[in-house]
Amino acid sequence: MTAISPLAPASFPDMPPVAGVRLATAAAGIRYAGRTDVLLALFDPGTTVAGVFTRSKCPSAPVDWCRERIKGGSAGALVVNSGNANAFTGKSGRAATELTAKIAAAAAGCTADQIFLASTGVIGEPLDANKFTGVMQHLVAGAAPGGWEQAASAIMTTDTFPKGAAAVVRFGANLVTICGIAKGAGMIAPDMGTMLSFVFTDAPIAPAVLRKLLREGVADTFNAVTIDGDTSTSDTLLVFATGAAASRGVGRIASATDSRLAAFRKAFNAVLADLAEQVARDGEGARKLVEIVVDGARSKSSARRIALSIANSPLVKTAIAGEDANWGRVVMAVGKAGEPADRDRLSIWFNGIRVAHKGERDPAYDEAAVSEAMKKPEIALKVGLGLGKGRDRVLTCDLTKEYVAINGDYRS
Amino acid sequence: MTAISPLAPASFPDMPPVAGVRLATAAAGIRYAGRTDVLLALFDPGTTVAGVFTRSKCPSAPVDWCRERIKGGSAGALVVNSGNANAFTGKSGRAATELTAKIAAAAAGCTADQIFLASTGVIGEPLDANKFTGVMQHLVAGAAPGGWEQAASAIMTTDTFPKGAAAVVRFGANLVTICGIAKGAGMIAPDMGTMLSFVFTDAPIAPAVLRKLLREGVADTFNAVTIDGDTSTSDTLLVFATGAAASRGVGRIASATDSRLAAFRKAFNAVLADLAEQVARDGEGARKLVEIVVDGARSKSSARRIALSIANSPLVKTAIAGEDANWGRVVMAVGKAGEPADRDRLSIWFNGIRVAHKGERDPAYDEAAVSEAMKKPEIALKVGLGLGKGRDRVLTCDLTKEYVAINGDYRS
Repeated sequence: MTAISPLAPASFPDMPPVAGVRLATAAAGIRYAGRTDVLLALFDPGTTVAGVFTRSKCPSAPVDWCRERIKGGSAGALVVNSGNANAFTGKSGRAATELTAKIAAAAAGCTADQIFLASTGVIGEPLDANKFTGVMQHLVAGAAPGGWEQAASAIMTTDTFPKGAAAVVRFGANLVTICGIAKGAGMIAPDMGTMLSFVFTDAPIAPAVLRKLLREGVADTFNAVTIDGDTSTSDTLLVFATGAAASRGVGRIASATDSRLAAFRKAFNAVLADLAEQVARDGEGARKLVEIVVDGARSKSSARRIALSIANSPLVKTAIAGEDANWGRVVMAVGKAGEPADRDRLSIWFNGIRVAHKGERDPAYDEAAVSEAMKKPEIALKVGLGLGKGRDRVLTCDLTKEYVAINGDYRS
Repeated sequence: MTAISPLAPASFPDMPPVAGVRLATAAAGIRYAGRTDVLLALFDPGTTVAGVFTRSKCPSAPVDWCRERIKGGSAGALVVNSGNANAFTGKSGRAATELTAKIAAAAAGCTADQIFLASTGVIGEPLDANKFTGVMQHLVAGAAPGGWEQAASAIMTTDTFPKGAAAVVRFGANLVTICGIAKGAGMIAPDMGTMLSFVFTDAPIAPAVLRKLLREGVADTFNAVTIDGDTSTSDTLLVFATGAAASRGVGRIASATDSRLAAFRKAFNAVLADLAEQVARDGEGARKLVEIVVDGARSKSSARRIALSIANSPLVKTAIAGEDANWGRVVMAVGKAGEPADRDRLSIWFNGIRVAHKGERDPAYDEAAVSEAMKKPEIALKVGLGLGKGRDRVLTCDLTKEYVAINGDYRS
């Protein structure tokens, strides 16, 4: 097994139960015997759901399944497995999603269209859905509030630590809870939901509002994280709102402009940001967490594209792995982005130290000071374009020999 | 020093002199003392020139210099240095190009506007053009026909072998010679000329025709090679036609539709293709040469974009480094390209063995046979989309720990 990422949080956070959500995990032998590889989440009646999915043209069978059902906005249960992505599995893959949903619906007492599915692991191996049959009754019987760390662990593949984040937030006169889990750590690129993540709340929120919150929330969180620029076939981010807080007198939110959403939106975005950062912290082989800020661009979207060009550049990422403030490669990555940039106005900072200014090496550049700064586990790389007011931020990690080792020997 | 790439040709090719071209190299101490780091090519009067350059928005000073002068179409000399890219060097960089051109023009007996410049190496370090002064007279005095291997060696940076290709080709009733040299091997991505390459011929060709030949020639050669997706600030490909064959009775070519060009065009493209393949064979840390063919796409450009998405995917490249026919990652890379693709029509071959067919693992898939095929140093990866008649081909290499080692420690 790979050692835990040096960038991992000290411990899994303390996460309260979410009223209306019960969790259970099991070892169904999807890929390896005896390894916990299935997560079931059961929802109280009335639970709403929204989701964002990979933009891949070759999505997995579970992504197809969820996309067709997400518009219904109603959820009874979530079934997630690790070990097999059920992607590029053709008819048998579709049959596997149908069978899994049928098994889960019977056990959970809802319709198959209220079952949401996600699978992560190897692509192209047929998934034997009958393996769920054996564990489903056991899962339903054992489902209980809380147990987030076990849930987050059950969905891991090459992740080195389970990822969770929670918030308790004022909602009108009451409090509601938001809990989320996520898994990475390869095939991470910002082209939508990115990897698997599931967020749960007891707030009563109509599907249309939940969709808007999610769409806005991912833009600067999950969609601003890249490990290797490779977009998965299986990226799925689902948010479930059980509405259980309504029993405590919380009124249902039917409009995105409802003032009670203000604090919730902030906390929801913070949970997404926390999970997304944990994904970057667990990038395969990562030794450095890298925050890239681009300002002075013509627009926010232009700043985003330049930041991603830097974040996905193998030469920038290997330089950071080598603790080398090689800003020449940053210039290269800015130049290749295809966005407006003026070499002679460009400035670059590493961890607050300006190394390049207005198209030349900074006259005060001190290689020793910069080298010292590059030894830190967190690197803030800032680029000033000096053209406009566009600003954006992207998180990534370095590219190490361990990344190559992990991915050069993944299937064996 | 890094060992020679295992994908290198057995030896440098036998390359004849090109009438009207004299070459010389010298050690000017640009970055390291005692290392050959300057190439001078002197051209007979009447030499025409065409060029293609990086599309980077942050081009090097020599690229700016050449772009301004290439329209003139007339060349007296070429000066190339390794060790310093003279990129992101501001006013001092521009001054260095002016001074270098002035020194070279005086020595070569032409105008500064007929001097073409290219620099490769570290970005952001001021280039001391006075270093050329000390060696220029010596270079001019020693310039002689031939000496291609020394010339190709003088322009190397992280290259592990010098790259050259030549052809002698029928041109009407006569023969003309085409000789080219190139250097890679990092920051290689198909966004124009890609890296440094210089091609020389004694055929008498008008600048406009030369430009057209070059533009068409790079499309499926240099622009179809990618090592790491990182486009250099300095990519330059120049072609010089001395016209010296006119003294043997070869008439000048003033039109791109001249029938005498047919054989020449073919040989010229073959020289470009040979050089481009050598660049891929010397990709930093490369252990496998990877040819990616995509057919059945909606168009050639769509096939190109999908092929590049595969070629630049770190997950595909690391899988190939690990000799793993992980076609699931190929599916991923097809899916993320953003081009029309139908998962359920997709077929994938590794070295002629079909591993996936119509959206599923090939029923006849034999992992042992595929694993054996993946041990070869050359991997042919073919994707059939089954949508249309668009086809394209891209060359790349695998992504190894050595790539990370080379680039994580480049400046020290």
